[in-house]
Parts: sequence; C-alpha cells; structure tokens
Amino acid sequence: MDTNRLYELAEKADKLLQMEADENNKKELEVIIKELAPIIKEIKQGSIGMAQIDPIVGDIEYNALKVMKYISFAQKIGLDAVVFPELILMGYPIEDTIDRHPIIVEENIKWLKEIAKLTTSITAIVGFVEPRKYDNSTGKKYYNSLAILTDGKIQGIVRKSLLPTYSEFNDYRYIEPSPVVGFQPAETLTLFDENNVRDCQKTNLINNIRYGISICEDCWNNKNFFNTTLYDKDPIDELAEEHPDIFINCSASPTRAKKEQLKHNMLSFIAKFYKTPIVYVNQVGAVDNSSFDGSSRVFDKNGKLLARAKSFEEQFLIVNPLKGIGKVYPLTKGLEQSLTEEKKFTLDYENDLARTYKTIIQGIRDYFYKNGLERACLGLSGGLDSTVCAVLVADAIGKENVFGVSMPSKITSKESKSDARELAENLGINFTEVSIKPMVDTCNDVFAGLFKDVEDKWSCRYKKSFTQDNIQARSRAMYLWGISNEFAKCIPIATSDKSELYMGYATINGDMSGGFAPIADVPKTKLFAFARWMNANREKKNCIPEAIILKRPGAELAIDEKTGKPLIAEDALMPYEFLDEVIWRIENRHEYYQDMIDSPFLYEKTHKVTKEEKQGWLDKFYRRMSTSLYKWSILPPSVIVEARSINKYDYKQPITSSHINYKGVDKADIKEKLETVLV
Amino acid sequence: MDTNRLYELAEKADKLLQMEADENNKKELEVIIKELAPIIKEIKQGSIGMAQIDPIVGDIEYNALKVMKYISFAQKIGLDAVVFPELILMGYPIEDTIDRHPIIVEENIKWLKEIAKLTTSITAIVGFVEPRKYDNSTGKKYYNSLAILTDGKIQGIVRKSLLPTYSEFNDYRYIEPSPVVGFQPAETLTLFDENNVRDCQKTNLINNIRYGISICEDCWNNKNFFNTTLYDKDPIDELAEEHPDIFINCSASPTRAKKEQLKHNMLSFIAKFYKTPIVYVNQVGAVDNSSFDGSSRVFDKNGKLLARAKSFEEQFLIVNPLKGIGKVYPLTKGLEQSLTEEKKFTLDYENDLARTYKTIIQGIRDYFYKNGLERACLGLSGGLDSTVCAVLVADAIGKENVFGVSMPSKITSKESKSDARELAENLGINFTEVSIKPMVDTCNDVFAGLFKDVEDKWSCRYKKSFTQDNIQARSRAMYLWGISNEFAKCIPIATSDKSELYMGYATINGDMSGGFAPIADVPKTKLFAFARWMNANREKKNCIPEAIILKRPGAELAIDEKTGKPLIAEDALMPYEFLDEVIWRIENRHEYYQDMIDSPFLYEKTHKVTKEEKQGWLDKFYRRMSTSLYKWSILPPSVIVEARSINKYDYKQPITSSHINYKGVDKADIKEKLETVLV
Repeated sequence: MDTNRLYELAEKADKLLQMEADENNKKELEVIIKELAPIIKEIKQGSIGMAQIDPIVGDIEYNALKVMKYISFAQKIGLDAVVFPELILMGYPIEDTIDRHPIIVEENIKWLKEIAKLTTSITAIVGFVEPRKYDNSTGKKYYNSLAILTDGKIQGIVRKSLLPTYSEFNDYRYIEPSPVVGFQPAETLTLFDENNVRDCQKTNLINNIRYGISICEDCWNNKNFFNTTLYDKDPIDELAEEHPDIFINCSASPTRAKKEQLKHNMLSFIAKFYKTPIVYVNQVGAVDNSSFDGSSRVFDKNGKLLARAKSFEEQFLIVNPLKGIGKVYPLTKGLEQSLTEEKKFTLDYENDLARTYKTIIQGIRDYFYKNGLERACLGLSGGLDSTVCAVLVADAIGKENVFGVSMPSKITSKESKSDARELAENLGINFTEVSIKPMVDTCNDVFAGLFKDVEDKWSCRYKKSFTQDNIQARSRAMYLWGISNEFAKCIPIATSDKSELYMGYATINGDMSGGFAPIADVPKTKLFAFARWMNANREKKNCIPEAIILKRPGAELAIDEKTGKPLIAEDALMPYEFLDEVIWRIENRHEYYQDMIDSPFLYEKTHKVTKEEKQGWLDKFYRRMSTSLYKWSILPPSVIVEARSINKYDYKQPITSSHINYKGVDKADIKEKLETVLV
Repeated sequence: MDTNRLYELAEKADKLLQMEADENNKKELEVIIKELAPIIKEIKQGSIGMAQIDPIVGDIEYNALKVMKYISFAQKIGLDAVVFPELILMGYPIEDTIDRHPIIVEENIKWLKEIAKLTTSITAIVGFVEPRKYDNSTGKKYYNSLAILTDGKIQGIVRKSLLPTYSEFNDYRYIEPSPVVGFQPAETLTLFDENNVRDCQKTNLINNIRYGISICEDCWNNKNFFNTTLYDKDPIDELAEEHPDIFINCSASPTRAKKEQLKHNMLSFIAKFYKTPIVYVNQVGAVDNSSFDGSSRVFDKNGKLLARAKSFEEQFLIVNPLKGIGKVYPLTKGLEQSLTEEKKFTLDYENDLARTYKTIIQGIRDYFYKNGLERACLGLSGGLDSTVCAVLVADAIGKENVFGVSMPSKITSKESKSDARELAENLGINFTEVSIKPMVDTCNDVFAGLFKDVEDKWSCRYKKSFTQDNIQARSRAMYLWGISNEFAKCIPIATSDKSELYMGYATINGDMSGGFAPIADVPKTKLFAFARWMNANREKKNCIPEAIILKRPGAELAIDEKTGKPLIAEDALMPYEFLDEVIWRIENRHEYYQDMIDSPFLYEKTHKVTKEEKQGWLDKFYRRMSTSLYKWSILPPSVIVEARSINKYDYKQPITSSHINYKGVDKADIKEKLETVLV
C-alpha cells in the first residue's frame, strides 16, 4: 500500500479539521475521506487515530464538539479506534473547580453519553471526570477516567490509579486512585468504588486486537526503568499479565527541560520490556503556567520509535503499530536532549532554545486566546528582559496587537531610547514614547511632605532607600495598566526574569506586575543566548539590536555612586553567571551553602574569585532569596520552562520561612545552646 | 491533693516560660518547681505536660530551644511525659521547602538527637521531618514523624499514616504515608520504609501506662463518626486493638468556621467509643494564610471534656487523664458553635465574631513578627473595609506602629475625610492626610497624550472605562508603597474584602495590593456585624464612628450618572446580602445557577425581587467571578477565616477557565450540537 499517500492525505485532512468548518471544507474533506477509506481498509486491524488536540479547561462544549469532529472523521475513514489525551472533555488540569462547581462534572457526563450514541462503527477512547459512588464511601469524590465508546454505547471505563501530586500536579487533591487497573464494564459508570470492582479482564478487545489502556502517570512507575519509583503499584505491569497486543496511554504531560528524553526512553523501554507496542497520546496547548507539548508517539514491540506527532501543534495522526504504519515528525529541538549528558551547570543553552521559544509562545498564545484577550502592552527599556518579552509576545499574538512603550526617566540613556525604538521598528510592533518625568516629579513633590509627616512619628526612615527606584518602575506600570484599562482586551506584560526574581530584584506594582510574565522561568544567562538565537532563527533576522545584547543589564533606576553612571545589576547583586549557577545547583542538585563553598563554580574557572567574595555572594543570595518569597507569591501567571521553577503552582514554600538557616549548625554548638535553656 | 494550687502554679510557670529567660525568672521558676514537684509526685503515673506552643516554620534552632525549655521544665517537676504539636521542630506546614533545601531536614535530625540526650527522667514526644530509607525504594522522600525520647535516647518513632491533601493541606506532595501505624523501634530512624517494618507492639509503655500515639489526620477517619471518610485505614482503630490506657494525638490544625465543634465531637466520640482517654495537643500561631487556634484538649474515657488549653495563646497544661486532673479553660466564643444547627445562610454572625477577631489578629501578628516586620501603613477612606483593617492591624501590632493615611480625591466627601480622621484619633494610630489630586492630575495629563498615541493604532478604546477609578486607587497604593520603601520594616495593608474579591471589585496595584490582606476572607455583610462587635467588645468602646457603619459602601472612585453622587457599590454590583448568599451557597452547598434560581434567598424574604432581577444578578455574579480568578491569584497573603475561601493556597482553579458554563446545557441541545459537527 501507498503509505506516503496515506500520510499526505492525513495531513490535508488535519488542516481542514483544524479550520472552522464551512461547506467548502466539508466538501474537500469528503473527497479526502473517499480516497482514505480504501487505504485504511487494508490496514484496518489495529489502526488507530491519535487525536493530539488542545482543549480549553472547563469548556466542555468546546471540547466535546472538537472530540466529536475527530471521532466522526475517524469513523468515516474506517479506523478501528480513535484516542484522545487524558481528561479531554474537561481539559487538564481542572483542579479544585470540580469540587466547588460539581455542575461541570454532571455536564461532562451528559456530553459523554450523547457522544457515545454517535460512535457506530469505531471505538473512541475519551477522558472525563467521573463521580464515584459516594454514599457511605471512603475517599475523594471523583475518578480520572476514560470511557471506551463503541456501537453507540459506553462499553466500559478505565480509571487512573497513580495520581501525580508534586510540582504543578495536584491530582490527589480531588481525584481518588482507582482500586483496580484497566477495564471495568459500563454498568460501573458513576457507580464505582472499591467495593464494586467487577471481576473481568483488564484489557479489552477491539476488532479482535487486545488493548491494555492506561492514563498518564499509570505508565510512569516501571521499577526496572527507574531507580526509585513514587508508587508501589505498576498498572502497566498488571495489564501486561494479559498479554495485550497494544498498550494505549492517554496523557496530559507538560514540557520541562530534559523531560522529553526521559519520556522517550521510558516509553521505549516499556514497549521493549513487554514486547508490546505502546501508543502514547499527549495533550497540546497551555493552561496558565503549564505548556503541554504534544509530541504524541508510538513505539513498536522492539522499543523502536514508529510514529511521532508534531510538538506544540494539534495533529491527527494515523498509525497501526502492528503493521508498522506511522510517520515520525521531527521534534522541536531541545525536546530530544540527551539524558546521559553529565548533570552540571553550563552556559551552552543552544540545545534548549527552540523548545524554550515554543513553550513560551504557546503559553502566551493560549493564555490570551483562551481568556478572550487580544492585545498586550509592555514597557521597552532598551534592556534585555523587555526586549525578549517583546519578541515573544509579538510572535505569539501578532505584532499589530502589541504596543511597546518607551518610558524614559532622567536616568535613561539616549542609547536605551533609541535601542527600544529600533527594536520596535524591527519587530513591526506599535510604539510610542512617553516620559515618566511628570509622574516622578509629582510623586517626589507629594512624598517630600508625606514622608516628613511620617518621619515626625516614626524614627525609622532609611538614610538610603529604594523609594526613588521604585517610583520609576511603578510609574511605568501605572501607564501600562492605564492602557490596559482604556483599551479592550489588553493586558500589560510583566518582564521579570528568573535570576532577578530569585534576588527580589523586581518592583512590586512595577516591572513585576502585569497580566502575564513570559520569562519568569528563564535565567538571565539563558536570555542572552535566547536573544542571539532569536536573531538567527526567526524568519526576520536580527530584529534585536546588537547593542541590547552587548550591554550589561541594569534597570537604569539609580546612579551608581562609584561610577556616576546608571547602576549595573551585577554590581548590585553578583555576576549573573555565578547567580544562575547557584540557582541551578539548588534546583537540580539540592545543594546547600557548604556544598557550594566546597566545589568550584564555572565562573571561578574564568575569573579570580576570593573565598570572601564567594561567601559574600552566597550570603547575599540566601538573604535576598528569603525575602523574595513574597514576590514569588504575587507574580502573574508565567510559563514553566526549566526542570524546576519558583512558580507558585509548581513550588511551595511558606513566605514565613525567612529564618531558615541554610548553612546549618555544628553539633557542638547545638549541645551548648540546648544546655543554656535548661531551667 | 490541692488541684487548684497545681493549676495556679502551672499558670505562673507558664508565664515565666513564655518570657525571655533572665536570672530573676529562673529563680522564680525554681521556687515554683520546688513547690510543684511534690504535687506532681502524687499524680505521677499518667501525668502529661501538653506544650501548646507556636513554632516558626523552618527556624529549627528557635523551635528546638523552645521545645528544650518545656522538656526541661516538665522533667524538673517530674511529669511522666511531655507532648508537643505535630512536626514541632520544623513547624507546620514546611511544604516543598524540605525537598528543595534538604539541609533543613538534616538539621532537624541533628537537633533531635541532641535533645534526646537531655531527656533523663521524662518521656518527650517531639515531631520532626524524617528522611526515609530511599535507595531503590518507592514513594516520597520523607515521613512526618514523632520521636519518643527517654533515658537520654530516642526510644522509638511514630509515623503519620493519613496525609491530608485538600484545602490548605499538601502533605502528600512531600510526605510518604507510613506503611504501619504506631510505634517502631529507634533503630528504624531514617532507615525506615515499607520493607523495614519491625514486628512490635504499636502502643508503648511509659511508667507502666500504655499509650497509643498518633499524628493529626490519623485520628480523623473514624467510620462510625463520619458518614464518609477520606481514607480506608483507621490508625486509631488499629492502636485500639492493643487496649492503650491513653491516646495521644499531636496536631497542627488551623481554625475554620464551624470546624472546632466537629473536632470536639469527634475527639469525644473516639474517647467514648474506645473507652480510652485522648490527649490532643494542637499547634498555635499563624503561618501565612493559616491560623492555628491551639485549644488543645483532653477527653476522659467517657468522652467528657477533662481539660482544655486556651485558644490562640501558647500554654503549658498539666493533665492526668487517668486521675481526672486537668483544667478546662474557656474557648474563644465561636469555636464552640453547634454543628447541629441547620446549614443555611444567615446574617446572624454574632457567634463567630470573637473567633474571627482572634484568628485574624493572630494571623497579622505572626506574619509581622515571624518575618521581622514591625509597622504597617494603610489608606483610611472612611469606608468599612479600611476601617476594620485599621482596627485589626492596630490591635495586632500596636497602634504606634500603624500609619493611617487619608488620601482624598475630588470625589471624596467631607464626611469621609472626617470619619477617617475620627477613627484614627479614636484608635490612637498615627494619621496624616495627603491629597491624590496632584497624582491624578499628572496621570490624566500624561494619559491624554498616551491614549491618543495608542488610539492612532488601536481602534478598541472604550467609550466608558474604569481608567479614572483605577488611577485613584493606584495613586493611593503608590503613596503607601512609598512609605513602605522609605521606612524600615513597614508594609502596606491590602483592604479588599471577600465579597468584592469575588466580584473583582478591587484594583490591581491599587486597593488589593499590599503586604498582607487581613479581611480577604470576610464577606461584606459580616464586616458590618464585625464593626459593631468591635465597638462593643474592644477595651476602648466605640472607636469606629457610627457614620462609617451606617453609610452604604462605595469606593468613591466614580460619580453615579443617575444620582450625581458617588457610586454606591451595591448599585454597581448587587445587594451585598444577596451576593454573600450566592458565595455562601457555592462554597458550602456547591449549588449551581439553577439551584439558586429555584430556592429563595434570605434577601427575597425582605425585598421584592423580580425573576429577571435575580437572573441578572446571578448572570453578573458568574461573569464577574470568572474574570476575577486572575486577581485571586495575585492577592497578598490573607488569613483564612471561613469554612471555604478563595485563598489561592486553599482553593485552586485555573485562571484559564473563563469559558465554564455554570448553567449547564439541555440534553436535546447537546444532541443537536454534536450532530452539526459530523463531517
């Protein structure tokens, strides 16, 4: 058979399915279906449509109609089965919403039942939130379930056993782990609990092929692959006992640095270990802080990659793992990084920049699109952070929808102003310049009197304060929020980066305020590489003026007393290269103070650093980090990019933990201190 | 024996223990110890010191020294045992911090081992975070454990089995449930996992009395008490098999509306059910959003309350549940609300106001104290929200540490200004008045040009916008953050209330910004009652001018076109009484749109409301709530007060869920819609 023609037709159909349906589309689709159907017939047994689609969390009608469209198409071309990502009717993650607004669970069941009626000649596997039998019962109120729909009916249910509850995942907050792995008959729908487990086969037959079906985390616990596992139970191992012909796993797994290779290796291992092909369908699209990359894939029984969908795009992929049918689309560079590379801090970001770009672009686009937003405004300082943000936002929502505002103060250099203007021109975004001087002057006038009044009562006025710096940052935010309030569907962009957020080097109600924070999980040293990468890889080259990349970052909020020039951030903080390695070591190696003293930093290989200097930087780091936790807690939504982040939905630390001693105490000191309190 | 003298001496000692130790204190304490020791001797077998103390999360040295002080005292007076709240060395909740900074876990083990050496003649039960045996293992890295310290050694460990993972609790994120209930020998310390369970008695002997020891949630799963339970296992039931003489439960359980009576009834039930007294020791103090009330207690074997510590205060309570020794201190009113009362919305808040007050006061005080903050500034508008906040903050951190700033605009009435001033005078807080007119004027001047520039490119300028209102709110926040930056250890107070946050009726970077939000979980109708309660119950009566309570709330940000007077919030939103009942019904009954249409509101009993009007309010409610989720996500820390809240650490809903249909769809509509997408 002509597999190339098959893939070609599938791609054409895919495009049409993603468009708004009009009569022309429908006709074109009919033509494709006519040609596809006989081809599919030849490979029918074991043929699967993998619908890698982007749901909107909680918008059940939108999701259901989309699901129906793909089922209908798959049915018409004659596939055995069509498979969707985890919880596709509800969208993942719905979080506590189902507990507070249970109506949406009832709704997803209603839609599911109607969809089932329309599956006449195909088996569809559709994720949904299922209420448990709950009278006099034990546990949470819901399961994370898959319905197996065939012959106009719900034939059975598969429920998730392993519930990720770490990082951005909170499954165990609202979902009960299934007491049993695999298939349970339809009669258990919404009437299931641990006392109602039916004695039946865990795997199930579709057109005489046996399938072992599971949900996301259920396939992440192979004790032969991982050194340590999170759960006792291994659902895939239980399914394997019945020797299925094909594993299917429905997932919603967001991208992270270095996560995809782990996923690749793990799925390949499972296929090979059990001599069973695995079909893995992943969600695409972003929800708030999580960006799902898709990259759905199929491994054959030898663990060889047989098919892989595009990353960061919706796609309908036709495969047959038993007949070797399936096309491998290229991964976004960065998703395939080697896991075997040594775990150490490096400035060689090149491998991860395409992934970083697509992760953030999708994060911005979906946040805007799914929330009915269309426009963004942001301050253009001529510095690196706002520059990278401008490019990202322009690429995500369209340059015509972005307004760059240069807001110079008396400290702002001529170069900063012209760099900002040049950037805007290169990008083709809207641009204007407006001085913050009147605001700063008025503010200072008012503050002179106000602070005097306060000083009369409080003797704790700082001799040196950040008040001046912050007035400037807040005046700029005032302008941007003004635009946001005055113009429809427009939000300001918060331009803080990860390195500076760690140091609290960001102004509350100033540069860290906004509707979305695109680069809050990108460290500064990576941003330099990122800017160069953008200049080289965007369709229009070199949009970012070289001067912006070359200059040493500084917020231009204050004058350095020593130099008489605007303060350079590294002078106020520490070298970014050093700072970013501290962050990296804490996040990736859980190192503490003494570990860092004891082993040399990359920065130390190229610069002379005294012991006192290094200690000084580390002391400053921990001191500043401790008092930055509050800022992390009020940061706008931001896309999680790196392996670990400070995003509040990913990492939780009480703000009230500022007394933590990150250095530790000697045993002898402990003894002495304890003895002094003896009454 | 003279029990009254026992309690009297214990109270005296308690005061001394809570003070900074100097030579005088030590001497006074020695005198008390001399008199107490012979009294304790008479009741020694089964005597327990309940150390209801307030730790600082992550400050292990502070916590350890405090623990040591109480152990030492308890040892000197000759008690059999001294018991502390859950995780006392680390403080609860430490959250993901232990995962990112494992050094603090090592530290808490080091301190624990040294404390053990000093327990010569007493048994101390001390909570700590315990690393698990983790090589080639399964599960999370830590247990939530109690160490039993005697004879200068760690005698054994008790580990938590049930891990609350709902509302503000995230135990399952970083803690592994114990595979076994009750006591395990000391040799398992940091070397324990499911493969290392020792065969031994679950209960343990102290001075020939058998104790069944558990941690917090472990006692919250009695299947005879609760209709539905969260877990399968019941640790207390397992402990009961060995017929202990006394149960001990170490807890960290924050206050919530109507939670305490549940706790009371449950503990009483357990004691009676197993004919075994229970000693329940609870944490006191606040961490960010959670306020722990203490109220530790003892029930005898008939389920009768034998002893109860004070609420919202540290206390060392001496009890002997076998000999009927123990004093019952009065609960803060509100903690004892009846559970049997009908679950319906009511404006009768009286019963809960003392609890509300103490919960918030402790929340503010601990946030300030534990984070090294001393001062607060807040805007005084002459309205209810800022007024209640001013009273709370003054009472929490001292009136001399509060600066009230009246910031009138051209809309602000003379009455508002004088009300604000009068309030400040009555409270004795610092006060100044500063007009926002210069800021608003400057901002408007700038905006005129800026908006014209934007309008040239974007044709989406609103005819009517909130820009004017927000300029005012943001100018005020600018002043307050200025004070915060210029004066040491000072933060601004965010004055938003719960009703208005639900409606998004709060300005980003304006009134909803600040370092802490005291009343973010208090609905508006309760605030009226709260203000009256404060006037009647604070030491200085009637600090809040009657005019403030009587006026209808309005932000005085805009003029109502219809009346020519400042806009009244209820006119822009809906009657607060109606709004608060919608919130109450969603949070407490999980009602949806149609439920609310179908059953009459309290407000409808006293006011004529047409069907259209009611629908209009509900439509507005859901529309506004959907777009307020972003604001909830950037709200500063705020004390959780009610049974349910919108605090982001308590309730999680994706911001990107604005398309949720809270009304639901007809089955017939679903069918029709699905059929249209068939390709």
